[in-house]
Amino acid sequence: MDRIVFTRNIGAEFEKATAAYQKDQIFIVTDTNTFVHCLPCLDARNISEEKIVIIKEGEDYKSLESVIRIWSVLSEKGARRNAVLVNVGGGLVTDIGGFAASCFKRGIRCLNIPTTLLSQVDASVGGKTGINFHGLKNEIGTFALPEKVLIDVCFLKTLPSRQILSGFAEMLKHALLKGGSHFERILEVNLRKFGGSEAEDLIRESVAIKSGIVTSDPRENGIRKALNFGHTVGHALESMAIEKHREWYHGDAVAYGMIAELYLSVQKMGFDPTLYERIRAFIKENYPSYKSLATGEELYALMLHDKKNEREGVNFTLLRQPGKFVIDNYCSREEILQALEELSR
Amino acid sequence: MDRIVFTRNIGAEFEKATAAYQKDQIFIVTDTNTFVHCLPCLDARNISEEKIVIIKEGEDYKSLESVIRIWSVLSEKGARRNAVLVNVGGGLVTDIGGFAASCFKRGIRCLNIPTTLLSQVDASVGGKTGINFHGLKNEIGTFALPEKVLIDVCFLKTLPSRQILSGFAEMLKHALLKGGSHFERILEVNLRKFGGSEAEDLIRESVAIKSGIVTSDPRENGIRKALNFGHTVGHALESMAIEKHREWYHGDAVAYGMIAELYLSVQKMGFDPTLYERIRAFIKENYPSYKSLATGEELYALMLHDKKNEREGVNFTLLRQPGKFVIDNYCSREEILQALEELSR
Repeated sequence: MDRIVFTRNIGAEFEKATAAYQKDQIFIVTDTNTFVHCLPCLDARNISEEKIVIIKEGEDYKSLESVIRIWSVLSEKGARRNAVLVNVGGGLVTDIGGFAASCFKRGIRCLNIPTTLLSQVDASVGGKTGINFHGLKNEIGTFALPEKVLIDVCFLKTLPSRQILSGFAEMLKHALLKGGSHFERILEVNLRKFGGSEAEDLIRESVAIKSGIVTSDPRENGIRKALNFGHTVGHALESMAIEKHREWYHGDAVAYGMIAELYLSVQKMGFDPTLYERIRAFIKENYPSYKSLATGEELYALMLHDKKNEREGVNFTLLRQPGKFVIDNYCSREEILQALEELSR
Repeated sequence: MDRIVFTRNIGAEFEKATAAYQKDQIFIVTDTNTFVHCLPCLDARNISEEKIVIIKEGEDYKSLESVIRIWSVLSEKGARRNAVLVNVGGGLVTDIGGFAASCFKRGIRCLNIPTTLLSQVDASVGGKTGINFHGLKNEIGTFALPEKVLIDVCFLKTLPSRQILSGFAEMLKHALLKGGSHFERILEVNLRKFGGSEAEDLIRESVAIKSGIVTSDPRENGIRKALNFGHTVGHALESMAIEKHREWYHGDAVAYGMIAELYLSVQKMGFDPTLYERIRAFIKENYPSYKSLATGEELYALMLHDKKNEREGVNFTLLRQPGKFVIDNYCSREEILQALEELSR
């Protein structure tokens, strides 16, 4: 957690974080939008444009080709083992840049400056890096912690509301895993006015929850699987949304994924049905309409192929109540199909 | 060290080491020669040929393309996070396969079966993986330890004598770093009859020396640099040998590199000149002729570009005596040029 720095003056914090590096050993990876809207907040005038790699947005660019572009710039512009790669952008940028850095000369340091809510609460914490390969998400990647993560809520002002929603789904997930007053606060948030010091407080707590889980299980052998809550169904929904050209964000899929997985929690773990209905209503009210995105059978088939399942059946993290999760619950086809009906109810 | 297993029955040991894995989750990387000469020693009949990736020999194939071939096979043939990649071959194979495994699904396990003397005493111990990129050696790679390393001296019988010499140079280096009776034994070896239990004893000691150094400094921040002894000059010699199409192996370059770096040790650290002459004679007698491979100026220019130098000047590990090394000794141009004259003397 001490490597994660919250700031309201990202320019000064960036300068501080890079002060120890030789000026010619600072490299930046960013995306087209971030380059325009966020990079000017950093005082990056000393960094020549030839040391800035701009990745186009979209999953298509979360590719080995993008990584090769970064490696080529590092190599051609004389990056040494004491170089630093600064990743400025959303999860796409921190995942790609983090992977590139972890393999260049067997690992140079990197500094993450997440600029979307999703990457502030999720992607830039936890040390997972990755790219897509052969059509499979994050098929290639490493576990590698950034030297520092700098978080400034000023960047949230540059985001469309759909992006705020997407990040907020992960915050809701963290709150469900933690429970208590933080969970209550999260359910009371007015998403139309998310920002400033309220946002900073909630992001800080969210990051602390994820960071606590990751620290105790960095390589996902045990309780880190808790962070997959909502994601087993969520990943299947995300795949279907891509296939059907529905404009869904990652968080939209996770939000609906949590509906199904909370329903399983009600059925199998005694999760409070009234609270379930309240969360379900919150998601239905705030997130895009489900509009029969996929049949239960389609989603079930996709889940069976999810890489997180190491044996037959589908593996879920479920909740007894907010703050009490149990990993590795295998659910039957019938149970899952019934839960998926909740999505269109 | 407990992950390194010495055996005189590689077939049985391979079966034991892979027994815990699902049969369809075992994949092999090897090279053309090893496939013919060594793979039959393993009882790999249960592993279908489509799960065996054969890399062509030579530095040209230590490339991202080879890694992509491995990732494609893993991905297409359904490797999961609990898969194992078995690398059977020389350092080229263990470096490439180790790198591919360390990035597939953020790291699957791998098992190294080194079949050359060089890879038995060097490449397969220490957790460095890597490939060449943009003409630079090991520019891309990771630090990743194999689950196990299985060493059987039976494979040495399949090697040409030049390959034995190449591996032996690293053994001589380890012996110089360790000193004592092991060093004396190494200087008495009859290289024309290297094999059997004498070889196994000496390899075991050599691996223990490297392993001890690596364990205390896995990421080369300090004393691991001792393993670069002979390599600062050695890498420059290796580059010149490639450029001039001289058929030099890695170990040939390291052997001559040690002559120059021992000379510097005599001049600057009080290394015994008589012992230096004895080692110099041993190398001159056993290794290919130097025949004015390069001028001192050519070699010095290459050393200045070596990635291991983080500031001006050239950094060496030098010896006060066998067993007493000192890292980070900066030597001047004049001192280096004088030492290089020893190569053709």
